[in-house]
Amino acid sequence: MNIELLNTGSELMLGRVLNTHQQWLCRRLADLGCVVTRQVAVPDTAHDIQSAVREALSRADLVIATGGLGPTSDDLTRDLMAQLLGKKLRLDEAVLDHIKKRFAARNLPMLKNNEVQALVPEGALVLANLNGTAPGLAMKIDEDGRWKMEDEQTLHAPSSILNSPSSRSPKWLIMLPGPPRELRPMFDNFVVPLLRREFPPDAPFVCRTLRTSGIAESLVQAKIEAPLNTLAAAGLEIGYCARTGQVDVRLSARGGNGKKIVRAAEAIVQKILGAQIYGFDDETIETVVVRLLTERKKTLVVAESCTGGCIANHVTNVPGASAVFLGCFVTYSNEVKQKFLGVRAETLAAHGAVSEVVAREMAEGARSQLGADFALAVTGIAGPDGGTKEKPVGTVFVGLAGDFGTVVERKFNPFERETFKEVTAWQALEMLRVRMVCP
Amino acid sequence: MNIELLNTGSELMLGRVLNTHQQWLCRRLADLGCVVTRQVAVPDTAHDIQSAVREALSRADLVIATGGLGPTSDDLTRDLMAQLLGKKLRLDEAVLDHIKKRFAARNLPMLKNNEVQALVPEGALVLANLNGTAPGLAMKIDEDGRWKMEDEQTLHAPSSILNSPSSRSPKWLIMLPGPPRELRPMFDNFVVPLLRREFPPDAPFVCRTLRTSGIAESLVQAKIEAPLNTLAAAGLEIGYCARTGQVDVRLSARGGNGKKIVRAAEAIVQKILGAQIYGFDDETIETVVVRLLTERKKTLVVAESCTGGCIANHVTNVPGASAVFLGCFVTYSNEVKQKFLGVRAETLAAHGAVSEVVAREMAEGARSQLGADFALAVTGIAGPDGGTKEKPVGTVFVGLAGDFGTVVERKFNPFERETFKEVTAWQALEMLRVRMVCP
Repeated sequence: MNIELLNTGSELMLGRVLNTHQQWLCRRLADLGCVVTRQVAVPDTAHDIQSAVREALSRADLVIATGGLGPTSDDLTRDLMAQLLGKKLRLDEAVLDHIKKRFAARNLPMLKNNEVQALVPEGALVLANLNGTAPGLAMKIDEDGRWKMEDEQTLHAPSSILNSPSSRSPKWLIMLPGPPRELRPMFDNFVVPLLRREFPPDAPFVCRTLRTSGIAESLVQAKIEAPLNTLAAAGLEIGYCARTGQVDVRLSARGGNGKKIVRAAEAIVQKILGAQIYGFDDETIETVVVRLLTERKKTLVVAESCTGGCIANHVTNVPGASAVFLGCFVTYSNEVKQKFLGVRAETLAAHGAVSEVVAREMAEGARSQLGADFALAVTGIAGPDGGTKEKPVGTVFVGLAGDFGTVVERKFNPFERETFKEVTAWQALEMLRVRMVCP
Repeated sequence: MNIELLNTGSELMLGRVLNTHQQWLCRRLADLGCVVTRQVAVPDTAHDIQSAVREALSRADLVIATGGLGPTSDDLTRDLMAQLLGKKLRLDEAVLDHIKKRFAARNLPMLKNNEVQALVPEGALVLANLNGTAPGLAMKIDEDGRWKMEDEQTLHAPSSILNSPSSRSPKWLIMLPGPPRELRPMFDNFVVPLLRREFPPDAPFVCRTLRTSGIAESLVQAKIEAPLNTLAAAGLEIGYCARTGQVDVRLSARGGNGKKIVRAAEAIVQKILGAQIYGFDDETIETVVVRLLTERKKTLVVAESCTGGCIANHVTNVPGASAVFLGCFVTYSNEVKQKFLGVRAETLAAHGAVSEVVAREMAEGARSQLGADFALAVTGIAGPDGGTKEKPVGTVFVGLAGDFGTVVERKFNPFERETFKEVTAWQALEMLRVRMVCP
């Protein structure tokens, strides 16, 4: 089964917004055993959208298109797809009623241009929009692969559509609205059941990601490749994805033995890499840290200077964090470091705010202020300004205080500001994880 | 000029990572006047990569491919492109030397599998990697459109490649490494000068985005459409992009008059929407708030409960924030709210932590603790648990204290946890912005 994803939107091509639909939809589909074979993004122009849909339908059994269903003049998808498939648009009274009610509930006037969202191509399934106005649309393409081509001359390879082996089984074209909080529940509520019915998985797909830290990509491969040879011959696929200080190892397989193969591979890699594996699948470092703290009934407090709340923000993204996370001080100025964390004026004068000693005093001060089991503290130079020869931009001290005492590590993260904050937050949480699993 | 972007990586198709290259590269290219016409992502398999590159080259003058240049077994791009274009790979001694030096500088052993990164197709330009091992590669395709097809039967439309009008001018295929901090400086240092030389812009592209808040997408269009009619007839393109509580209006035009048309359109929209425009182009709400605070020489402190550091994290992403941002208290527990913000026990007992009065006391306490001009405070229920009938999950109180007094707004953001935090942080910063521009 081939699945293609088509994201429409000139804002994507101009780089004005990040395409979060790709990751979200690809992930959901992979979890259903349906791996997306191609993703395409095109601008909001009739020619680009129609030719992309035609090409996708020539290759795929299922095409999911996002965007272009709204009320404004650049929302073209509804009209173009009806035209491409030779269908008329009809006014759906139930949808119109839903739109009117949404405006009324908000005491807003409903403008005429919102009515276009109630037009649906004849024969299309209407997918209700629980969080917005424009419904989704699902269209089954005739089993013999015949649909009306309005504009044949722009078609790249008409013969391949009609003759391709998959054109004999029905194809589906599903259109979803662009805003994520409209698209996501619509996909879960209506598209998932449709896919389960129309495309029951033939060969289950099993995938497991092992997330490692502190080891280079080439070294990870060198260590695990040979021991996995037999499983690779049996169908195991191995993928690597490197980030700063981290490497994800992805183990996957298809078919009846897929689960067994992936489990065996995971056991081998676990034995080789041990505690260098910090998490599995989507587990983030903050999820792992909150889980470990919860299991051990320990509490955490954080004192952040240069990371400016980034660590606290990550930790509080985890549901249930409130049981182990007491709070955080974002202490940008020296006065605040003194007043709330008890950092001594002499220490600041002698060593500067970005120093091993200040990181230590921040961690110890934060820990004793809130009576926490662990305290993390960071102080550094995020840039773009503020660097010196001895402490260039990117220099950072990470302190960890606990009943074992206090340790401080010096790191160098010479990246632009946001990456600096993210990488430093990651390192701080990883320090805490390692301390908990290898005390 | 047609530009296509090709992102390779099975991790993209499995939804394991977010494709940040698309936004970054599309944005950089648009700023150079080169709008990407299509973006495609495919998995790390030979057939998918080669057919996607062939198709892209059949349509585009420039194809930029990302990923697949690393040292591991799933890094196929280098080999596949050489094969597709009928070129042999040669060992580049300078690249090998660079790789050896990077490993030596880190006191790491260089494994044999890293050497493949020093192989480059004959005739390719080598783009140095300042932050990693694998170089980028740029290949000029023969002017007559002839390059060697190893595997013709998988090609969808060979004739269109050789006969398309653009096949008579030279085409470029540029390959960049996957890690963002390797790709980005390589693009800026080497690809931008190459593009300026090879593809001087013929019709300048001008684009301006006006970011609005508190007004529905359909209403934005209804207000500005008719007044922009004349400019639209002269070539103005108008795009809309809606997010929770926000709508971006994108004004763009091409050609010699483009700048004049976009400027005139901007003046019209500014006059109509006024203070509902919070920023321009890439300005985020935090950038605007830090700019306004800096201009007015005012300081800010933040007290966050349910947003857990999200506001502070946004504010400290802005370079120069340290001049106006004093600090933040993330007060998850009631004890911490009392101890550091002076919230009264009676208030907590009478109204609960999620209440108008607690938001008020948090804001006033934080402001007086640090002697700031403004204090923002939020308390609410991020979920998934903790909701009641009167205060369901998503309920949040946002307080703003200043020399004008204290105001508190009740909001309802019934979204999943991270979206709840982001939307609430946005609303808090927008409250401060509106207070500063319309006191």
